[in-house]
Amino acid sequence: MRALVYHGPGKKSWDEVPDPKIIDPTDIIVKVDTTTICGTDLHILKGDVPAVTDGRILGHEGVGTVTEVGDAVSTVAVGDRVIISCISACGSCSYCHQGLYAHCLAEEGASGIGWIFGHLIDGTQAEYVRVPFADNSVYKVPEGVSDEAAVMLSDILPTGFEIGVRYGRVKPGDVVAVIGAGPVGLAAMMTAGLYGAARIIAVDLDDNRLDQAKGFGATDSVNSGDADWVEKVMGMTDGLGVDVAIEAVGIPATFEACTKIVRPGGTIANVGVHGKGVELPLDEMWIKDIAITMGLVSTSTTSMLLKLVAQHKLAAENFATHRFTFDQMLEAYDTFSKAAESKALKVVISG
Amino acid sequence: MRALVYHGPGKKSWDEVPDPKIIDPTDIIVKVDTTTICGTDLHILKGDVPAVTDGRILGHEGVGTVTEVGDAVSTVAVGDRVIISCISACGSCSYCHQGLYAHCLAEEGASGIGWIFGHLIDGTQAEYVRVPFADNSVYKVPEGVSDEAAVMLSDILPTGFEIGVRYGRVKPGDVVAVIGAGPVGLAAMMTAGLYGAARIIAVDLDDNRLDQAKGFGATDSVNSGDADWVEKVMGMTDGLGVDVAIEAVGIPATFEACTKIVRPGGTIANVGVHGKGVELPLDEMWIKDIAITMGLVSTSTTSMLLKLVAQHKLAAENFATHRFTFDQMLEAYDTFSKAAESKALKVVISG
Repeated sequence: MRALVYHGPGKKSWDEVPDPKIIDPTDIIVKVDTTTICGTDLHILKGDVPAVTDGRILGHEGVGTVTEVGDAVSTVAVGDRVIISCISACGSCSYCHQGLYAHCLAEEGASGIGWIFGHLIDGTQAEYVRVPFADNSVYKVPEGVSDEAAVMLSDILPTGFEIGVRYGRVKPGDVVAVIGAGPVGLAAMMTAGLYGAARIIAVDLDDNRLDQAKGFGATDSVNSGDADWVEKVMGMTDGLGVDVAIEAVGIPATFEACTKIVRPGGTIANVGVHGKGVELPLDEMWIKDIAITMGLVSTSTTSMLLKLVAQHKLAAENFATHRFTFDQMLEAYDTFSKAAESKALKVVISG
Repeated sequence: MRALVYHGPGKKSWDEVPDPKIIDPTDIIVKVDTTTICGTDLHILKGDVPAVTDGRILGHEGVGTVTEVGDAVSTVAVGDRVIISCISACGSCSYCHQGLYAHCLAEEGASGIGWIFGHLIDGTQAEYVRVPFADNSVYKVPEGVSDEAAVMLSDILPTGFEIGVRYGRVKPGDVVAVIGAGPVGLAAMMTAGLYGAARIIAVDLDDNRLDQAKGFGATDSVNSGDADWVEKVMGMTDGLGVDVAIEAVGIPATFEACTKIVRPGGTIANVGVHGKGVELPLDEMWIKDIAITMGLVSTSTTSMLLKLVAQHKLAAENFATHRFTFDQMLEAYDTFSKAAESKALKVVISG
């Protein structure tokens, strides 16, 4: 089969590689019909994730058709169309019992289960993929849900919802600011309304992204390049700050921005993947009854979000801005990595 | 009357001052029967809290007898014995409606209500004190509860419980580590069992305090001066870390210690009052589903804790290690400020 293979920092190619095989009885093999590229894949290509080694097939998002099932798999069968979750989980350990699938304690690769696709095991940017612990790691796609919509449930929609909206404790009437209007930030905006957010403020440096945000649930937008952007956000509240500040970039400046706009009693929900530590002004913040949350998605809400997508209550397909075929994989990467120019949100690659 | 008056950094005296008077109809005057000293008072004396100005009577903890009530006060009467809460609150603003009394929006002093005694208005280390918004800021003491027990409900017990245990989301079976076995840390240990903590680990540099902690609910203790203290704490868990790490000191080193021992999915509850910012290793922590909480006590649980004290389920009186009369106020300060030598937890000053 063909697959997008990482060959060390800055190097990737669309290679002929061996087809995956069932290893454990809880595995399935899925023919990938649709995949996409995540910001994390670009981080890996920069060499930011040293656990990813030469020869690894990248990608942790995908929709496909089951072609083979291990003897212990009971919930999916050959021919089923499934969403491949970015998180693999055994379902049986103490973390899985809490729904914290991201921290599954079963062994697969160097550091347990959780996010392993395109990281510790071969991923979904390939014609076929081996999916471990299939009973807990794939979701059947209902009729009427397109691949383009379904693939947004592999990672970005549950990430924005679980790590942004739910960890952020969004509640009815809240003013929510989302710093960073990339795909995951937009996913948080799209799902903040599920808990009754009254006002959703998109904050970004890019006016194009701020325009796009209006189509994803943002009621307001503020360009954080403006000198008075904090005052602008404060002016959209009662003057005390936002109830929830969602960080969806992953750099110190955007985390710091959240500390400036959150109100006493509010929450900073960090969704961004950080490569550096940040300064926490605890001397100013200790008195403010603020909670700071963070985490890797557990995809415990995937089934629920999938229902809403099937009911056309969440327009997941709107994230797909560019379409490619599998043999255009390198072109898809090029478009996605130049998102500021191409205005790409999610590039969809289909077989 | 006599009162402990702050005269700028390093300066205090036991002065003759005018008696307090009713200013607003929601005020009462209380004859202070018992007061105590808080670590915060020592911070003020170092000049760390510049909002406190020359001439301010210090103290925010006290038990006393109502001697005068304003026209609008309906829940207490002359002669009632009351706990004076460290937090003053109007009861009517949007924060009070959420139970976040620490952030009450009513005006009294420079920055609203909340912690104002011995800070923005005259405090409780005096023979008499004016208590604003009395209907929401004092609690009648039931028969059988001593002053020594009751005064621990002005601040330390609700602080340890609300900001440590409740914000820390302690739940049945949890392993809880409390870094810092001072009065507020001990208050967190004493109340962690209310939510079913299975193991409560006291962590401190002082072996004497670690010994004392055993009498306040700690099941284990670790001296954080030991090179392998983190390994020792980890060995008291399943190897993944504690469910809840409560910071009860207020310096960067103890906050950092919490980040080292908390497990994925756990909580760091910061109780300490910080004078400096801290480094947050978000590059290591973002993936771990950790929540960090912080705050000023709202005293929303004072009534509940008072019931447990009255039922002898919380031995609040155990915090009182040294006793003084009002005219020994300066001696009481001396003993409390040399707690390492004197082994003082709370010094109780009675009229």
